[in-house]
Order: sequence, then C-alpha cells, then structure tokens
Amino acid sequence: MKKVALGPRTLLYPMPAFLIGADIAGRPNFMTAAWSGIACSSPPMLTVALQHHRYTLKGIKENGVFSVNVPSADLVKEADYCGIVSGEREDKVAVCKFEVFYGSLKTAPMIAQCPVNLECEVMHMLDLGSHELVVGQIEEVHVSEDCLTDGEPDLLKINPLIYCTGAEKTYHAFGEKLAQAFSVGMEIKKAKP
Amino acid sequence: MKKVALGPRTLLYPMPAFLIGADIAGRPNFMTAAWSGIACSSPPMLTVALQHHRYTLKGIKENGVFSVNVPSADLVKEADYCGIVSGEREDKVAVCKFEVFYGSLKTAPMIAQCPVNLECEVMHMLDLGSHELVVGQIEEVHVSEDCLTDGEPDLLKINPLIYCTGAEKTYHAFGEKLAQAFSVGMEIKKAKP
Repeated sequence: MKKVALGPRTLLYPMPAFLIGADIAGRPNFMTAAWSGIACSSPPMLTVALQHHRYTLKGIKENGVFSVNVPSADLVKEADYCGIVSGEREDKVAVCKFEVFYGSLKTAPMIAQCPVNLECEVMHMLDLGSHELVVGQIEEVHVSEDCLTDGEPDLLKINPLIYCTGAEKTYHAFGEKLAQAFSVGMEIKKAKP
Repeated sequence: MKKVALGPRTLLYPMPAFLIGADIAGRPNFMTAAWSGIACSSPPMLTVALQHHRYTLKGIKENGVFSVNVPSADLVKEADYCGIVSGEREDKVAVCKFEVFYGSLKTAPMIAQCPVNLECEVMHMLDLGSHELVVGQIEEVHVSEDCLTDGEPDLLKINPLIYCTGAEKTYHAFGEKLAQAFSVGMEIKKAKP
C-alpha cells in the first residue's frame, strides 16, 4: 500500500455541516460549522471551532450558550448559504425562512426545520490559533416528532447532511447501511485462532 | 414542526469511526473512536475524546503523539472489533492483520490499509468527566496512492465509513452527492429580494 504525504491539513471523513445558533444583541443568527465533534459522554459535551472574527462567536460569548442544529439533506442550500454570508450584514433567519424556537437555556436559538437541535452551555474556550475551540455541555436535545420511531431518532427520517473535503468540497447524503455497530466486529473476535 | 425533548445526550449526525493509534510499551495498538472532530485550521488540529481507563490513552500519554486512521467501508468489521476489545488483552494488530507503518513523529503507529492517516502531537488534555479530551496538532497526513485523483484525496476511492447513533447504532457508507459546497448557497443569496 503505497502512501503519499500531503502535509499537515484538516482531512477527515466524514465531517458534519452543523448550523451553530446564537443570539447577538437579542437577535438569532446561525453559521455553518464542520469543525465539530462529541467531547464527552458524561456529562454530554461537544466541541465546535469558530474563527475569532465570527459574528456567531460574539453571541456565544455574550450569552454563554449556543445551539447545534443538524440539517437534513433538503436544507443543503440553506446550510451552505449560512457558511457563505455573515450575520453582521444579512438577516439569515429571514432569508432562509427559518422558524426559530428557544428551549430551557432561553437564549440559544434553534431552527425548527432542522430535525435535531442541541442546546449547549459553554464550559471551556481554548484559543488554538485561527480558531477558538468552544467546549459546550449539551443541556437538552430536541428532535422533530416526525423523525422519531418508537420515541427514538430514526436516521432514515432525519436524512442528515454530510460535508466532505478533498479534491472537491461537497455535501452528501447518508448511503447504505453496512453493519450493526458493537456487533459485526464479533465475527473477527470469534474467528481468531 | 412539533419537537420532542429527549434530554441531554450525545446525538449528532454524522459521526466518524476513526481508528486511534498509539504505541504502548513499544507495541502499536488501535481503538475505535467516534468522539472526534477538527478543532483548528491554522495550525491544523483535531480533538479526540477517550475514557480515562483506555489502554490507548496510556500510550498517548507515554509518547505525546497518536494517529487518526480513517477506515474505508470494507474495514467495517475491523473498525467495530477495535471498539469492542481492549489492546490490554488482545493483540488487535495481529488479529486484524493490520500492516503498521510510522511517519515523521516516529512513535505514532498508522494502519496502511486505512486510506487516510493523520499523525498528531498532543497540545492539550482536558478532563471533562467520563472522557479526557485530547487536542492534537496534525503534523502530517498520509493518503494511499490509489485513493488520489490528480494528487488530491478522492471520496469515491476512499469510500469512508460513517458511524450513526439513534434507535440503532450502525455503520453506513457515503451516499449520493447533493451539491457543491461554497456554491449551492449562492442560489439563495441571489434569490433574496
């Protein structure tokens, strides 16, 4: 297996395309972020990295809370738009026709059209260079009722968006189910000599 | 859009299924991690969250370096296996028949069969509760030569694995391309009144 060294770069698969929400001066704004992931199970936490100049970061610092909204594939235009323009110059909520709602944290705006919404409280902020790494504790999770099956989130109904870097920067849908997790690996465990 | 509150939990789409590599007492080991994401662009950094008792974490602390290996869909059994068993009891490299190679950091073992391999140096460690959040600087990226097109990583050739939580815990392949990023959103920008 011949390898080629490409130099240091942010190359991982898959990446998300989350819509990060914050109130700035009392008005909701959302920006797209692919630099994000889960950071802890108990208590549940996640990270999101934002450039220092981001308008959304101003709101996160103002209120100490933010939201993470998972767009479905049919929101691909809106998700891309919110990564291109700044809320300092455009009212993205109006342009995208987002229906905004608030939960228990009161000042973390969420997008009703996104099937999954997480309310987060800031726990840590780390200045890493070009980006500020925000570590947030997940205080509540909201899921659209029509995306649940027997009360649990259903991937096929959620139909989440995937972001992808490489030769091209593209959005993709989820593909075929390959296997059950914490299960298919047992075949190797059983097969070993 | 009626919403249902599910309580605080680690629900995000998509999630990765990375194989995190470290040498422990001079021997390579790999564990599966879905709690991971990019943390900074310049310098390029990522996070990975590991439970305190993890054997791999011992190696990361020992050497101050680790690797992130992106498995392709055809490594789904191996990826799942490396999340089920501990390297303290089993030689996962032998069982999975991983071909291990080292790069510029010398003590961050990588899996040749994985199409994308990142060598990382530990920059920060944050104890968040159940998990230790490791922030690593990406020092080098290796890609299998047969996964490049015109010198750039090609998604179709890489064919990465996606992890998914919810009603079921499953692995998926990438699906259809929906749109070009930093482009499709311009249609909204143009269309607004």
